[in-house]
Amino acid sequence: MEKADFLKDPVEHIDIKSFDSTAIIEAMRNMSFTAGDIARAADIFNMMINDNECTIILCIAGSTSAAGCMQVYADMVKHNMVDVIVATGAAIVDMDFFEALGFRHYKGIHFVDDKVLRELYIDRIYDTFIDEEQLQICDNTIKKIADSLTPGCYSSRQFIGEMGKFLIENAKKSYSLVQLAYENDVPIFCPAFSDSSAGFGLVKHQSQRQDSHICIDSVKDFRELTEIKMKSPVSGLFIIGGGVPKNFAQDTVICAEIIGESTEMHKYGVQITVADVRDGGCSGSTFREARSWGKVDNVYEQMVFAEATSALPLIVSFVYHKQNWQSRSRRKWSKIFE
Amino acid sequence: MEKADFLKDPVEHIDIKSFDSTAIIEAMRNMSFTAGDIARAADIFNMMINDNECTIILCIAGSTSAAGCMQVYADMVKHNMVDVIVATGAAIVDMDFFEALGFRHYKGIHFVDDKVLRELYIDRIYDTFIDEEQLQICDNTIKKIADSLTPGCYSSRQFIGEMGKFLIENAKKSYSLVQLAYENDVPIFCPAFSDSSAGFGLVKHQSQRQDSHICIDSVKDFRELTEIKMKSPVSGLFIIGGGVPKNFAQDTVICAEIIGESTEMHKYGVQITVADVRDGGCSGSTFREARSWGKVDNVYEQMVFAEATSALPLIVSFVYHKQNWQSRSRRKWSKIFE
Amino acid sequence: MEKADFLKDPVEHIDIKSFDSTAIIEAMRNMSFTAGDIARAADIFNMMINDNECTIILCIAGSTSAAGCMQVYADMVKHNMVDVIVATGAAIVDMDFFEALGFRHYKGIHFVDDKVLRELYIDRIYDTFIDEEQLQICDNTIKKIADSLTPGCYSSRQFIGEMGKFLIENAKKSYSLVQLAYENDVPIFCPAFSDSSAGFGLVKHQSQRQDSHICIDSVKDFRELTEIKMKSPVSGLFIIGGGVPKNFAQDTVICAEIIGESTEMHKYGVQITVADVRDGGCSGSTFREARSWGKVDNVYEQMVFAEATSALPLIVSFVYHKQNWQSRSRRKWSKIFE
Amino acid sequence: MEKADFLKDPVEHIDIKSFDSTAIIEAMRNMSFTAGDIARAADIFNMMINDNECTIILCIAGSTSAAGCMQVYADMVKHNMVDVIVATGAAIVDMDFFEALGFRHYKGIHFVDDKVLRELYIDRIYDTFIDEEQLQICDNTIKKIADSLTPGCYSSRQFIGEMGKFLIENAKKSYSLVQLAYENDVPIFCPAFSDSSAGFGLVKHQSQRQDSHICIDSVKDFRELTEIKMKSPVSGLFIIGGGVPKNFAQDTVICAEIIGESTEMHKYGVQITVADVRDGGCSGSTFREARSWGKVDNVYEQMVFAEATSALPLIVSFVYHKQNWQSRSRRKWSKIFE
Repeated sequence: MEKADFLKDPVEHIDIKSFDSTAIIEAMRNMSFTAGDIARAADIFNMMINDNECTIILCIAGSTSAAGCMQVYADMVKHNMVDVIVATGAAIVDMDFFEALGFRHYKGIHFVDDKVLRELYIDRIYDTFIDEEQLQICDNTIKKIADSLTPGCYSSRQFIGEMGKFLIENAKKSYSLVQLAYENDVPIFCPAFSDSSAGFGLVKHQSQRQDSHICIDSVKDFRELTEIKMKSPVSGLFIIGGGVPKNFAQDTVICAEIIGESTEMHKYGVQITVADVRDGGCSGSTFREARSWGKVDNVYEQMVFAEATSALPLIVSFVYHKQNWQSRSRRKWSKIFE
Repeated sequence: MEKADFLKDPVEHIDIKSFDSTAIIEAMRNMSFTAGDIARAADIFNMMINDNECTIILCIAGSTSAAGCMQVYADMVKHNMVDVIVATGAAIVDMDFFEALGFRHYKGIHFVDDKVLRELYIDRIYDTFIDEEQLQICDNTIKKIADSLTPGCYSSRQFIGEMGKFLIENAKKSYSLVQLAYENDVPIFCPAFSDSSAGFGLVKHQSQRQDSHICIDSVKDFRELTEIKMKSPVSGLFIIGGGVPKNFAQDTVICAEIIGESTEMHKYGVQITVADVRDGGCSGSTFREARSWGKVDNVYEQMVFAEATSALPLIVSFVYHKQNWQSRSRRKWSKIFE
Repeated sequence: MEKADFLKDPVEHIDIKSFDSTAIIEAMRNMSFTAGDIARAADIFNMMINDNECTIILCIAGSTSAAGCMQVYADMVKHNMVDVIVATGAAIVDMDFFEALGFRHYKGIHFVDDKVLRELYIDRIYDTFIDEEQLQICDNTIKKIADSLTPGCYSSRQFIGEMGKFLIENAKKSYSLVQLAYENDVPIFCPAFSDSSAGFGLVKHQSQRQDSHICIDSVKDFRELTEIKMKSPVSGLFIIGGGVPKNFAQDTVICAEIIGESTEMHKYGVQITVADVRDGGCSGSTFREARSWGKVDNVYEQMVFAEATSALPLIVSFVYHKQNWQSRSRRKWSKIFE
Repeated sequence: MEKADFLKDPVEHIDIKSFDSTAIIEAMRNMSFTAGDIARAADIFNMMINDNECTIILCIAGSTSAAGCMQVYADMVKHNMVDVIVATGAAIVDMDFFEALGFRHYKGIHFVDDKVLRELYIDRIYDTFIDEEQLQICDNTIKKIADSLTPGCYSSRQFIGEMGKFLIENAKKSYSLVQLAYENDVPIFCPAFSDSSAGFGLVKHQSQRQDSHICIDSVKDFRELTEIKMKSPVSGLFIIGGGVPKNFAQDTVICAEIIGESTEMHKYGVQITVADVRDGGCSGSTFREARSWGKVDNVYEQMVFAEATSALPLIVSFVYHKQNWQSRSRRKWSKIFE
């Protein structure tokens, strides 16, 4: 088998505008178990859209972007359903920015000899394949962007803004989350930015410029995100997966309190995850648990225990077709840092 | 709080004819992870429909019927998508037959004081509520049917046939799985029939008639189901949940071999479950594992790891709207036992 | 590869007498998460032992007996820690009785080509291998026992008693659960008895003797188990896995009520399982949920969410070394059916 | 209820030296399922200890330190079983450093009214309680340390080193991971350091010193960890939970390659987690999957799917009592950055 035999079926990203899940969600609303949870999650997300004061924070962990949900997130930005993004470096750089550079993810299988994949320089995420050589081009593009910047401390938000700017000139695919977020002043934060393809490029950048390079200050990220929270009378979380992005976004409420500016708990919360509650990890922790910390209110919250590729498109298609985002004003939070 | 406060939002069963999931399934086909699995499962189920020789065995474990999927199964029988059913007693008696008698399940919550529920005689299945007093009417109806039968050994299939006959005269809701299966000669097997509301009624029946009563012979069930398998050149499994029904249906291949009549492995297999593979339990065991036993072939099989209320309606709606069941001849397997 | 290459490392069953887990359990008692749950489960099991009036019902589903816990269950019977067993047919026949006949389970791997296994007649349970030809000897032994019995309706308990009697004469390994239970008057119930190697043998038996054969009446099982419950002022459940055995044992409380003999809820409850609560399936349902049905009290109950091979030996070793079973009188419930 | 009613049973951390799990692990070695996996994981960890060239990297995500495993990690450093630590900020700051300051975690329950907890300023992690006011003292201690440092860019490793130095003077409990690691030159990295109690303190520090403050450069972390990897001819991963620490440590192999210094894959790998493989998240991804990326070899690797509090103490107690760490030379990796 050759590389091309493994990399022949590109993942096509689902377009939530191309079908209308309204009838399904309406039917699920009167069901129990996960179906009922999905419907309630859709309703709560729609309440966030309808709440004029609400800042909507989208948190992304895991590999849903590689598996076919990349355009869901892009559509959410394009169609004004999200105001701030907190994500893993992998979701933003290895997946979204990577495809913006013209590369693709491929449908594969999970029951495969990984040594063969390694020999062919194919990376696997469960049942999805990636061309490692293309990923290295992505790493190096990050390095190039870093090289072009004035040395100093940057938040990941600032750096990702530079990536958006870069794409305006250089994108092979213009409908990327990074570019759309840049164009619509939706800030993207990656609290563990180095833990990704970006990290490789940035380490290379620093290695070659020992004394004059950029660094990524995650404290600055936290300050900036907290500042947005403090300026938002109302906020809602839409969380995919969990992990660091979830914790980071939830913690802004506490952070504001610590620096002496009291703020409200996140009023709305939706999470789609397969994580388990019982190991005390952040990913599986419930909004009820977050309530004890004073992070998230429990009136309008819903956990959906499902693998996100199966539930997210239904929820977002429903809210898209409700059209309430049309009359919503853009928050343009990136502007406050200019 | 009174009983009526808890039992006010009846579960409405999703109608897979009222929406068309085709566009969603088509989009999911090019995705990875669970979305891709759902699409492939839908395709394989449709292959079963299109295979003129295929006997389709629907296996149901868990409480999806209580949670809003009851009509999905009824529609599958009505619209000729299933030829044999193997299920838990709870799915058939406590849920389907129970609603045929005019009772309902109710949307509830899982974070609740169960002692309060007990005091009000409300039973809870995760976030779904049931009126225990109505369940006891169901138990007693089973007893009445048992009392009316000639003493002797029955397979669960025979007894459930009598339940179908009873409903023709007495149903408050006619569109039940038990009645439709009876009317369309689709046999229903419950290999652990006593492990349900039926068990209560049957124990009461036997207790009152120590010397002259019916009994439920599960060996007879196994013989009958194996007989169907031996008469089916091709067969496919559509499994919800797992458990005893899954194992029972898979085992017919081996059973035929043991009694000296070789038969083919199940050619198609689809399962939707949240069960875990790692405890060696039947529910989570993969079709690959079943291949080692010679039970299920591995060319057209797909496990979908999801809570079934979220995935089943999408899959069945897709196959329903493909319309290929229209030209399919009914197997009428019940007839062979007359 | 030949068959012998796959079947070379027999599973050796853990001997909970050979190590003392007391210090570990004592340390876990002051921890949180699953460790704390394991310690509390051990304490509750020990309370059952110390409660002079308590009938202890052990429920077994899943394949822990194949994976190395077979002797744990045998030791529980030998050392008077259990009074009644409710199990899957597989646990009792395919695994315990199978090894009593001199056969073994083998350590294997789960990442393997199952077609190769099939060609070699090797069955796989996750990472455990079985010689299919030996299993067929087991099937046929069941048939032989059935052939030797007076035709009529048997409960699974009665039939398994006959298996115990058979082993006294014929066992290659005498320390089996089936034999020890027989010798100590501990009844074993398999509510879905046909769903196992026993089913194969019994179908063959019935096929060859159309007019004069035995049948297995699961209603009788339910009556008998309920009778034991009614005679037990206090009862406790020790559940591995879940499934039909769990539901069956829990339901005896309701069954007693239905036939007009009120009885107490199960006072104690311990369950070790990996099942998920969210699909409404019985395996994952909590004791809290069972409380709403009036089945299990919630003062002394503990769910342990773990794969049982990792937690069960710790719990039983602790209770064994506490030695309180020494002064406990044997319930000998089998005697009431003589 | 008052605060003291909830905070009365402090979590006592398990001492793996106080019991010897050798007999249990030896017994588990011949079992299948999770028991067998635990034994193999213990054996592989012991191989790492015995490999004179191996650098052992301990990765910690999740809340096991809060739940009673805190001393396990401290013992691993004290007794020379680990050379590098990569962890979440929460594990290091909110839990370990927090207890070093004299505070405690408390055993609680997960079925509780979280609004009541909030009113009492009690934070909940599943079934574990924390005094929020004590956590804020921890935040402020971090701020004080930050205030005392020369402004500039620090890796988290450098900052955590300062925390260790601080504890030598100020610890109320001296046997903490942070202090022991400092004393034994075991570097600790937190790639998402701000995502913790440290983040609160550092944001406060930066807010008050807009122009002259420290920042935490996660790129520097990645460079330093990669440098250690490049200097280690052989390396092994011992991973609890997954998340960012797992990915970060695995990625060092690729990072070395990117900056032009080829290095070997991690030779050994052990992970204990409850994460699911099917959502493509890092936490649940198998070592086989990592093999496709060229990160971890697959000869000596074992995933253990279990909640870590139940399995980790058995594994580490086994390796501790094998005593092979006695003759192992300390790597003292912190020294290379002096």
